Amino acid sequence: MGDMMTQDYFFKVTTPEQVRDILNNTTKPLSAEKISISDALGRVLADDMDSPVDLPGFERGTMDGFAVRAKDTFGASSGSPAYLNLIGEVKMGENTTIQVSQGEAVGVSTGSMMPSGADAVVMVEYTDFLDDQTIEVIRSVAPGDNIVKKDEDLRIGEKMLNKGHVFRPQDIGALAGVGIMSANVVRSPKVAIISSGDEIITPDQTPHIGQIRDINSFSLSALAKQAGGLPIIAGIVKDDYDLLKVTMEKALEDADIALISGGSSVGARDVTIDVIRSLKASEILVHGVSIKPGKPTIIAKVGDKHVFGLPGNPVSVMVTFELFVGFLIRLLSGTKHPIWEPRYVKAKLNRNVASAPGREDYVCVRLVESDNGFLAEPVLGKSATISMMVKADGLVKIPLEYEGLEVGTLVDVYVFSN
Amino acid sequence: MGDMMTQDYFFKVTTPEQVRDILNNTTKPLSAEKISISDALGRVLADDMDSPVDLPGFERGTMDGFAVRAKDTFGASSGSPAYLNLIGEVKMGENTTIQVSQGEAVGVSTGSMMPSGADAVVMVEYTDFLDDQTIEVIRSVAPGDNIVKKDEDLRIGEKMLNKGHVFRPQDIGALAGVGIMSANVVRSPKVAIISSGDEIITPDQTPHIGQIRDINSFSLSALAKQAGGLPIIAGIVKDDYDLLKVTMEKALEDADIALISGGSSVGARDVTIDVIRSLKASEILVHGVSIKPGKPTIIAKVGDKHVFGLPGNPVSVMVTFELFVGFLIRLLSGTKHPIWEPRYVKAKLNRNVASAPGREDYVCVRLVESDNGFLAEPVLGKSATISMMVKADGLVKIPLEYEGLEVGTLVDVYVFSN
Repeated sequence: MGDMMTQDYFFKVTTPEQVRDILNNTTKPLSAEKISISDALGRVLADDMDSPVDLPGFERGTMDGFAVRAKDTFGASSGSPAYLNLIGEVKMGENTTIQVSQGEAVGVSTGSMMPSGADAVVMVEYTDFLDDQTIEVIRSVAPGDNIVKKDEDLRIGEKMLNKGHVFRPQDIGALAGVGIMSANVVRSPKVAIISSGDEIITPDQTPHIGQIRDINSFSLSALAKQAGGLPIIAGIVKDDYDLLKVTMEKALEDADIALISGGSSVGARDVTIDVIRSLKASEILVHGVSIKPGKPTIIAKVGDKHVFGLPGNPVSVMVTFELFVGFLIRLLSGTKHPIWEPRYVKAKLNRNVASAPGREDYVCVRLVESDNGFLAEPVLGKSATISMMVKADGLVKIPLEYEGLEVGTLVDVYVFSN
Repeated sequence: MGDMMTQDYFFKVTTPEQVRDILNNTTKPLSAEKISISDALGRVLADDMDSPVDLPGFERGTMDGFAVRAKDTFGASSGSPAYLNLIGEVKMGENTTIQVSQGEAVGVSTGSMMPSGADAVVMVEYTDFLDDQTIEVIRSVAPGDNIVKKDEDLRIGEKMLNKGHVFRPQDIGALAGVGIMSANVVRSPKVAIISSGDEIITPDQTPHIGQIRDINSFSLSALAKQAGGLPIIAGIVKDDYDLLKVTMEKALEDADIALISGGSSVGARDVTIDVIRSLKASEILVHGVSIKPGKPTIIAKVGDKHVFGLPGNPVSVMVTFELFVGFLIRLLSGTKHPIWEPRYVKAKLNRNVASAPGREDYVCVRLVESDNGFLAEPVLGKSATISMMVKADGLVKIPLEYEGLEVGTLVDVYVFSN
C-alpha cells in the first residue's frame, strides 16, 4: 500500500478537442486492398473512381410505346390525331437497324434501344391502332421525351465516386452498371483488444467471490466492428508487467490499434503506462482526458500504431471508445464524413444534470416520447455498471465550460446503434 | 405489338399505408436460432432475457482508497482528521476474509471486494499515511459511498433485454458479464434476388448495343444485407414464362422473400404476374402502388413466403425496397423499432418540387450546408439512371394529398446509409 501512495495520480489532462487534434496529427491512412464490389458495403474507397464507359451506352426508351420523330406529332390531339405508319418493333436487348423516317413509328418497350431517326417515344396510352400498320397519336411529344440518352446516366471518364466515400448500395449498383467488378478500398484497421485485471475471468467460467466476468472484450469487439474495424480478441492478462508486455508486443505485431481495458486502479494504470513506455519507439501522447467518465484514458503511439489504455469500467470504456477509438478508425480509413450526423436526435432534458466546469460530461439517457417531442431522461446509476448502458438509448454531452444543464434544455442525443 | 395493346395496364393501385397494413396482416415472425453472443451485433432477440445471477455478485469498491466504517470518518476534515488503523489490503480478484471493526481501515483498489464490516471507501486522495499502520482521513464518507452493491448492476431474475430488441455492443457486453454465451435470435430472412429482362447481362460481360449490365442484383443485395437479410443472388432470367417460373420456384424453396426486378414493360410485367399466379398457394396482394417512382410494384404471397415484382429501373427498385421490402424484413424479424428515427435529417427545400395528388412522390436530394441549417437540393434527372441515387444523400417524401412542396419547406430527409 505504501507504494500506491507515492504514485503520481494527479496527472495532467488533455481536452477531448486536443485529443482529436493529436490523433489527427499522428495518423496516416492505411494501405489499400482490392475487393469484390459484392463485399464493398460500408467499406471506404481508396481512390477516386471514374466511369470507364457511357451508360446506358445507347439511346433507350423509358416508356412502352412508339419511337417517332417528334415533329410528326406536333399539334396532335384526340380531336385531331396524327397518323403514323407502324414499320416494326424493337425487342428488348436487340441492336436494332430499323430507320424511322417521316410519318413512321416503331414499337418500343421500356428500356429497349431507340431506332435511328426517332427522337422521342409516344406513350402507348396516347395511341390507338387504326389497323395492323397504322397508329393514331392523340398527344404530341417534344424531341427527347421518354428517352435516356447514350451517356445520360454516366459519361465515359465522369467522376463516379470520391476517395474516402463509404460504399452504399447504390454505389455498388452503379459500379456493376459500368462493368467494374472490384474496388480499391482502405484496409480495415485491425483492433487488438486486451482485458487486464487480476479479478477478470472469461465469461464462460464461474467466478468465485471477488472475480468478475470479462465484459469489455465483448462490448469493445462489437464497437470495433461497428466502426469498421476488425476486432482481434487478445485475451485477459493479469496486472503483471511481464505478462502485459508480452501480450502487448504480440498484439501490436498483428494489429493497427491495441486497446487495453481495465487497470482502473492506480497500480494497474502504472503497470500499463510502464509497459507502454518500455515498448520500442513508443511515445505517450495523452495521459488523462478532461471527460467524465473516461478521465484516466492513456493514448500512445508505438511506431506507426496506436495504443489506448482505457478505463476498466464498462460505461467509461464504451464512452472513450466512441469518442476517440472510433475517431481514429475513421482517420485510418480516410473516411469522408457526411456533413450531417444522423446519429443525433433532439430532445429536451427532463431533469437538471450537474457537471463540473473544465471537463466534458457524458450522461446516459433514455429517450421518451412526449407531446412536445422527445424527452432525454438521465439513467441513474454508477458508471461501473453495464446495465446503465443497456438501459440507455444514447449519450448527452455537457460541454467543457458548463456547470450542468437545466431541465428543459434542448440537447442533441448521440444515439447508440446496432 | 397488337397483343401489348390489349393488356390491362391501368391496374388498381394501393396506397403505401395500405401496403404496410397488408404486409403486417400476412406476416408471421420467423423461427429462432441459437448463436454465440460474439455474432449477435445487429441481430434480433427472439426471447426476453433475464439475468441468471447478481452482478457484480459481491460488494466492490469503485475507487482506490480505504474500506472503512463510514461512521468512523464523520466530522473528519483537514483541520481535524480521523485516524484509522490500517489492518491489511484486499488484492484485486481476492475473496477476502478480513473483518473491519471500529477504527480500522483496509486498503482497496478500484474493483476489489469490500471486506466485511466496512460500508464505504475513502478515496486515497483524502488520506495520508502517518506511519505504516496508521492513516489519517481528511474527508468524511457516508455509508455506501464509492461502493457498488452485490446486485446493483443486475439482480438475479431481472429483465435484461426484451424480445425484439436489436443487439448493440453494450447488450453483448452485459450478457458476457452474467455468463450468457449464446442467445436465441430470429433467423435472418433469406432474400432471393432475380433480375429479369432480355436486355440484361451480368456486369462482367461486355454488352453489345441494346444490352445493359445488371445493376439491381447488386444494389438489392446490399440493401438486403443492410436491412438484416441474407441475400441470395438467383441470377438473370429472360422475360420468358417457363424460365421465370422455374427460377422463381427454385428461389422460393430456399428463400423467405423473392424479389424479381425488371420487367418494367407491360409485356414483361404480365409474364411476372402470370408466373406468380401459376405458383402453388399464390395470392396477389398488391398490384400497383400510389407512389412515384415505383408504381408498378407487385406483391404476392406464395404459401408463407412473399414475392415482390419490383420495377426495373434502378431508382424505383431501391425506393420500393426501402419502403416495403425493408419493412417486411423487419416484420419477419419481429424487430422492435426504436421510437426515434436517426435516419432522418431536417432540411429546407431549396426549390419547388411538383407532385400529383393521390400518390406519394419520393424525390432524390443532396444535403447542402448553409447558414440556416441544411438545404435539401433535388437531384435532377430521370429515375432510369443509377447516377441520381449516387449523387443523392437521401429521399424526401411528398405526401399523398400534396400537389408538391414549395421552396423553403422544412422537410425530413431519409438519409441513405452504408
